[in-house]
Amino acid sequence: MIIVMNPGAKKEQVDEVILRLTQIGFGIHLSEGETRTVIGAIGDRSKAYSLGLEAMEGVEKVVPISKPFKLVSREFKQENTIIELNGVKIGAEKIVVMAGPCAVESEGQVKLIAESIKAAGADVLRGGAYKPRTSPYAFQGMEEEGLKLLAEAREKTGLCIVTEVVNPQCVPLVGKYADILQVGARNMQNFDLLRELGKIRKPVLLKRGLSATIEEWLMAAEYLMSGGNYNVILCERGIRTFETYTRNTLDLSAIPIVKGLSHLPVIVDPSHGTGQRRLVSSMCKAAIAAGADGLMVEVHPDPERALCDGPQSLNPIQFKELMVELGRVAASVDRTM
Amino acid sequence: MIIVMNPGAKKEQVDEVILRLTQIGFGIHLSEGETRTVIGAIGDRSKAYSLGLEAMEGVEKVVPISKPFKLVSREFKQENTIIELNGVKIGAEKIVVMAGPCAVESEGQVKLIAESIKAAGADVLRGGAYKPRTSPYAFQGMEEEGLKLLAEAREKTGLCIVTEVVNPQCVPLVGKYADILQVGARNMQNFDLLRELGKIRKPVLLKRGLSATIEEWLMAAEYLMSGGNYNVILCERGIRTFETYTRNTLDLSAIPIVKGLSHLPVIVDPSHGTGQRRLVSSMCKAAIAAGADGLMVEVHPDPERALCDGPQSLNPIQFKELMVELGRVAASVDRTM
Amino acid sequence: MIIVMNPGAKKEQVDEVILRLTQIGFGIHLSEGETRTVIGAIGDRSKAYSLGLEAMEGVEKVVPISKPFKLVSREFKQENTIIELNGVKIGAEKIVVMAGPCAVESEGQVKLIAESIKAAGADVLRGGAYKPRTSPYAFQGMEEEGLKLLAEAREKTGLCIVTEVVNPQCVPLVGKYADILQVGARNMQNFDLLRELGKIRKPVLLKRGLSATIEEWLMAAEYLMSGGNYNVILCERGIRTFETYTRNTLDLSAIPIVKGLSHLPVIVDPSHGTGQRRLVSSMCKAAIAAGADGLMVEVHPDPERALCDGPQSLNPIQFKELMVELGRVAASVDRTM
Amino acid sequence: MIIVMNPGAKKEQVDEVILRLTQIGFGIHLSEGETRTVIGAIGDRSKAYSLGLEAMEGVEKVVPISKPFKLVSREFKQENTIIELNGVKIGAEKIVVMAGPCAVESEGQVKLIAESIKAAGADVLRGGAYKPRTSPYAFQGMEEEGLKLLAEAREKTGLCIVTEVVNPQCVPLVGKYADILQVGARNMQNFDLLRELGKIRKPVLLKRGLSATIEEWLMAAEYLMSGGNYNVILCERGIRTFETYTRNTLDLSAIPIVKGLSHLPVIVDPSHGTGQRRLVSSMCKAAIAAGADGLMVEVHPDPERALCDGPQSLNPIQFKELMVELGRVAASVDRTM
Repeated sequence: MIIVMNPGAKKEQVDEVILRLTQIGFGIHLSEGETRTVIGAIGDRSKAYSLGLEAMEGVEKVVPISKPFKLVSREFKQENTIIELNGVKIGAEKIVVMAGPCAVESEGQVKLIAESIKAAGADVLRGGAYKPRTSPYAFQGMEEEGLKLLAEAREKTGLCIVTEVVNPQCVPLVGKYADILQVGARNMQNFDLLRELGKIRKPVLLKRGLSATIEEWLMAAEYLMSGGNYNVILCERGIRTFETYTRNTLDLSAIPIVKGLSHLPVIVDPSHGTGQRRLVSSMCKAAIAAGADGLMVEVHPDPERALCDGPQSLNPIQFKELMVELGRVAASVDRTM
Repeated sequence: MIIVMNPGAKKEQVDEVILRLTQIGFGIHLSEGETRTVIGAIGDRSKAYSLGLEAMEGVEKVVPISKPFKLVSREFKQENTIIELNGVKIGAEKIVVMAGPCAVESEGQVKLIAESIKAAGADVLRGGAYKPRTSPYAFQGMEEEGLKLLAEAREKTGLCIVTEVVNPQCVPLVGKYADILQVGARNMQNFDLLRELGKIRKPVLLKRGLSATIEEWLMAAEYLMSGGNYNVILCERGIRTFETYTRNTLDLSAIPIVKGLSHLPVIVDPSHGTGQRRLVSSMCKAAIAAGADGLMVEVHPDPERALCDGPQSLNPIQFKELMVELGRVAASVDRTM
Repeated sequence: MIIVMNPGAKKEQVDEVILRLTQIGFGIHLSEGETRTVIGAIGDRSKAYSLGLEAMEGVEKVVPISKPFKLVSREFKQENTIIELNGVKIGAEKIVVMAGPCAVESEGQVKLIAESIKAAGADVLRGGAYKPRTSPYAFQGMEEEGLKLLAEAREKTGLCIVTEVVNPQCVPLVGKYADILQVGARNMQNFDLLRELGKIRKPVLLKRGLSATIEEWLMAAEYLMSGGNYNVILCERGIRTFETYTRNTLDLSAIPIVKGLSHLPVIVDPSHGTGQRRLVSSMCKAAIAAGADGLMVEVHPDPERALCDGPQSLNPIQFKELMVELGRVAASVDRTM
Repeated sequence: MIIVMNPGAKKEQVDEVILRLTQIGFGIHLSEGETRTVIGAIGDRSKAYSLGLEAMEGVEKVVPISKPFKLVSREFKQENTIIELNGVKIGAEKIVVMAGPCAVESEGQVKLIAESIKAAGADVLRGGAYKPRTSPYAFQGMEEEGLKLLAEAREKTGLCIVTEVVNPQCVPLVGKYADILQVGARNMQNFDLLRELGKIRKPVLLKRGLSATIEEWLMAAEYLMSGGNYNVILCERGIRTFETYTRNTLDLSAIPIVKGLSHLPVIVDPSHGTGQRRLVSSMCKAAIAAGADGLMVEVHPDPERALCDGPQSLNPIQFKELMVELGRVAASVDRTM
């Protein structure tokens, strides 16, 4: 940590900063320039959070040197984390594909989709039973009834199930049915939810928040891991920018960045990331080429009649064709499908 | 609602759109241009949410005409909502000032601050007992112990209490102690929390999300009002932009916009909005000049030793001076303090 | 074009809007709902620019239906534009690679890079002779001397030359030496420069502005084409967002979007788009997988001693390896290198 | 400047960084922690621009300590710069008001506006003769004819004239007619234009770019001042964010920030900053309360028939009323109108 003092900072102010840092065990390197003093402080950054250095008189800014996350970092664990689940390995050579409707709507819908994505080669069935919606007047999900339909589909097809949990109290219920519990973009910093999910051992799929920096996203994963749940899958799903043509701007550079900073697997959701069906195929290919460990794709038997997010959903035929094309791209970067 | 068809849309596709709309009771105006067809649809927008029009073949885009919020709108209620609370009126001529520390830290801290802000003319004491923090290793709040300290300060000073609730289950507990329940920026779209707060009748202070559009913010308020809680206070606290000099970019134009679209009171939090103590005074003045109904300001007895957000906190002397200056600005726009 | 009137708009106000539209030859469809009137207007959008409809009394908003660009659109020209240049085809099956240093620094540097990228399979040599720099104290380029070095390198290697022009007066001079004239991100809306480049017939590489929407970018291309220069290459190079980990956020979804809206070729610059050498390879692969027609990559013989943008430059060995890997990805999406 | 080395950086890599820094005269403070080495470097930052430190092997990041601008900084000049112009003082106690149409359209329009804003108390007449427009099909300005109309209005009213210059070659021509030369937001980093304006001595009004950080904006001013022109007026006019309700997001916190960092006067343009007439009044008041030295307001005799930006223009009666209200706010913060 570097503490940059104001040009006019007094000696007492410098001494006060040093005193506080040494009290919590930091080593100090003092650098007195002509116009200003800079203090190098070596120690455990997490201990310094509550020191209030930035608020001290004479301090211009505090520049962190080490990263704020620990357990999620490559320094903590060098080899890639691989999460195993009924024979599906997430983070390994094979690209994992999660597919299904935005929302669970009916038994027929789930059954039809589960069978068709299974046939096309998907590994995991996605589907929302609890839907966070911007409007209180929009369809809010089938709740437990929806979870049951997903579980039935698993029994018939052998697919794993991923579904969203929106509330700390619902963790046990959702955990009863799902193989992977999803934290949606709007809940990435719902810390009570993260703490609750840190207590279980089922994998958690953590979507990046709409305006979350990569550091904040990894800190949310740190909440899960510091609670003891090391089965974390990160999911890039687009960030909010000034561009209005797409629903969000899919940040594919986040893939190599996160793979460099962390050992956790990273997947990409181009359906939410773009909001437009006709962009999904290109962005799936790009995600794999950029090094993603998996994809999450919205598929609906009849996108025109979907209760949510129809415009970004593929139909089963489009999905099947996509899977064939993706296999070729995967092979070109030494991955399999 | 306007449905713009693709240049090459077929007659059957146009007919299918019209059929779906008429089935839910919409009136139709058809406009067939040389290159494309445009369908005007008149009816209740909230019914059309699940139609999936945008996903239909031949549809290029759907342009909403009416606003998606109802109960929060000026059309629903023309006169300003004024929320009364132990003699404090929020949304009336007098600017309401909420002040206090980011986090409740100790009995002494709360007592000292409560007395000093009361003396300076504040109406409401703020202080966090549950703190959503980016890092799991940072101070997370005193929880119920903190709520009790706030309630004691109320008894001694007569100030109202506003404090954050981060979880639907905590609503009864926080509601037992607080006069106003705050929804933080990260929870603006925590819909389960909003639904729970829609069931009570105590006022809710709804902070704007870091990357929430004004429409999404008002839709979050609509969740509260559609649940039956009409006592909603909106709070602008800065949005996330590319500018890194400030923690956030305070969007003061949101004040006249929201006052135009809605009858609800709007206050401003320049402490979080800028993240820097030395900008707070200017932004408080600007907020009042722009038409804000109130302010939320962080005050700490010793900002250098604050457990959170010290750099943006004023000390009691600075706050007292600020209140005097604000009185002059308020008078210049026909408001009182 | 749809003109949405205010709920309380008067009949005279509606009539005035209709009058102005019919005066310039628009057809009108009137739709009178219970709460508001909506006017559909059919005609040439470019004629309506100066009507001032949005400023008229009673008008709530004006919603454009047709796109504002013409010559750049797929409607104007259905087949892909292919730009031919000394045997290099830009926009065809083969991915075009432009490589070279950020800035021309010396004869030795240009010669060495030109030979190494030629050997690795690049088609075009890039290098800046005029450098727009944020600081007036940073290296500003070798100017005409640099252009001459580029031209010499062309003679020796047969590579085409692309270099930036920053000023309308410089167009003849830069055009004397370069095969492709580049408009930098900061000049995307330097309309005098665009007009001047619209008069020549050499290809123009138009970089997307840091905060330009896709529509604004295509409108800048429309300036070039409306001046008569149809040889326009679009280049995505990252947009400015809140994320600070990368210099910019590379928007790869822009590729399929632009390929859908326009017939012009699109290339990607992952060096500026990320600002970090170690992300360049992944983003090159992703760009090709997403459908880009070419790449622009910074290569420097000794990135550590580059006068500008060293951190994002590859050295010749890294570039050669990258080219081999890219060939495999290109083949997987039916392109060649 | 702080150079943070990678955890695994080798001694030779550290030595090489130190060597390069000492070669250009920097003093060095070395701090070797357990996991990584940090190098403090003391010297002239502008000399270090071309060192390429960030690209060196073993370097993780380079953290600048001193600010990159010099002549514009408060350290260079402590007292406020006041620009005098025919009796108008910009940067002094009196708030300077610049008003007029977006574009000069006719003799009658300019004459009418000039007289009415003069009567209302404005000091400077604004009006564009060269208009940078997103579409090549929109009105592009009256050019020199427009400049002459502005000059005539000055003779009749005694108002100063501010108008935009879009091109380095036009500087002499525009400088012949105008008292203040304006650099528009799109040209903030048109460095050739800035260099040309650095050579003259007439005041330059420098608008902040749509996506310019405050540091980049001040660096653009540094271009002007390093060329010898110390008469620079900064103008905040809104930045581009995700919010679509307003044309831009007016960043009023930029006012106290810039007043802290620099001695230059700062004014605000709420017309472009919001794009909506009904927000202009509130934002003018807020700007003054926040400490702005002046305002730029669009006024048009008939906003509904304006050739550009009608929706954000006031009519003369609205402007006159606004001026009265602003006088009260100015007095409340010890300024005059």
